[in-house]
Amino acid sequence: MTEQKATNVTWHDHSVEREMRQKLNGHRGAVLWFTGLSGCGKSTIANTVDHMLHERGFHTFVLDGDNIRMGLNKNLGFSPEDRTENIRRIGEVAKLFADAATIVSTAFISPYRSDRDLCRELLPEGEFVEILVDASLETCEARDPKGLYKKARAGEIKGFTGIDAPYEAPEKPELVLDSDNKGIDELAGEVVAWLEANGYLNA
Amino acid sequence: MTEQKATNVTWHDHSVEREMRQKLNGHRGAVLWFTGLSGCGKSTIANTVDHMLHERGFHTFVLDGDNIRMGLNKNLGFSPEDRTENIRRIGEVAKLFADAATIVSTAFISPYRSDRDLCRELLPEGEFVEILVDASLETCEARDPKGLYKKARAGEIKGFTGIDAPYEAPEKPELVLDSDNKGIDELAGEVVAWLEANGYLNA
Repeated sequence: MTEQKATNVTWHDHSVEREMRQKLNGHRGAVLWFTGLSGCGKSTIANTVDHMLHERGFHTFVLDGDNIRMGLNKNLGFSPEDRTENIRRIGEVAKLFADAATIVSTAFISPYRSDRDLCRELLPEGEFVEILVDASLETCEARDPKGLYKKARAGEIKGFTGIDAPYEAPEKPELVLDSDNKGIDELAGEVVAWLEANGYLNA
Repeated sequence: MTEQKATNVTWHDHSVEREMRQKLNGHRGAVLWFTGLSGCGKSTIANTVDHMLHERGFHTFVLDGDNIRMGLNKNLGFSPEDRTENIRRIGEVAKLFADAATIVSTAFISPYRSDRDLCRELLPEGEFVEILVDASLETCEARDPKGLYKKARAGEIKGFTGIDAPYEAPEKPELVLDSDNKGIDELAGEVVAWLEANGYLNA
């Protein structure tokens, strides 16, 4: 747990505003937490889901490694401690977006189960939707869109998830996407269908 | 400047999505950055502005000391380094909300000019609106809603802005609110009128 250092602050209740924001947007907020190996398709699927929802009038946003690593978390590296702090901050920001009645998708490897569970605990029951983008290491390494596996195999990147750092798959994710055998649009469609079936797209 | 530690990431261009989100919301995003001494009225004014804009159908959110200090920045204290990191993170999160076409108000003492200027630089020209909530130390200390000045004078809180830590007022804020002589509703109305006059409330 992260220590609470500041003691002279009090919790500000946003609950009324939260309902008002939901009413304005016409839907609740939620966090769609995509997790999986580098190259599994997380970011592409998350952005496709985001577009599909946006086109239907939902208020959405995407937090992904590229915009967060260059901004909020640019002072963090890839050590286990920094990875944990990386995910903690993203969870807190995602919670703020959900409070703002936004359906926010996050696309990070987020390899540690305990880190993801802490993010789930930040949110009211049901507002954290954990989505495992399931692709084998072989598939991801064959894709290797950024050449990162090659560098990791050559020892140029240390602590690379799946090579010399662990990936702890979720035990009870809300959704599992078969990224070994299905394409981006089909998988994004599965996410939207699941959200529809589970009442996330109602007012 | 904060060091960029992660080198194997690339910038993801959200510009198309940004325009799409603006179109959906019917307005641009912006950051209303309220700054001033503890007890000057920042948070109350920011929340009042937020309500006024929300009632007119704008998509808004508030980041304030209470929800940020208990969440994203709960591992930061009040040392100069931690204050700087506190404001840096808030600036980055505010930028994300502006990217999501939200009018986000931030209400933090944010005593250092250089910290606020870094936040301004994160945003496109015109999207950072710096609002000085101007109240004399005497006024703030007389109000002392949380009893913090009393504790600071007694030496129970160290590094308290205005007592034993500096407050650097903005040199060219977009707006100055006279919180010594005017009430919350009047000052919040001045902010909304300024936004209106300067084209922030157009589609």
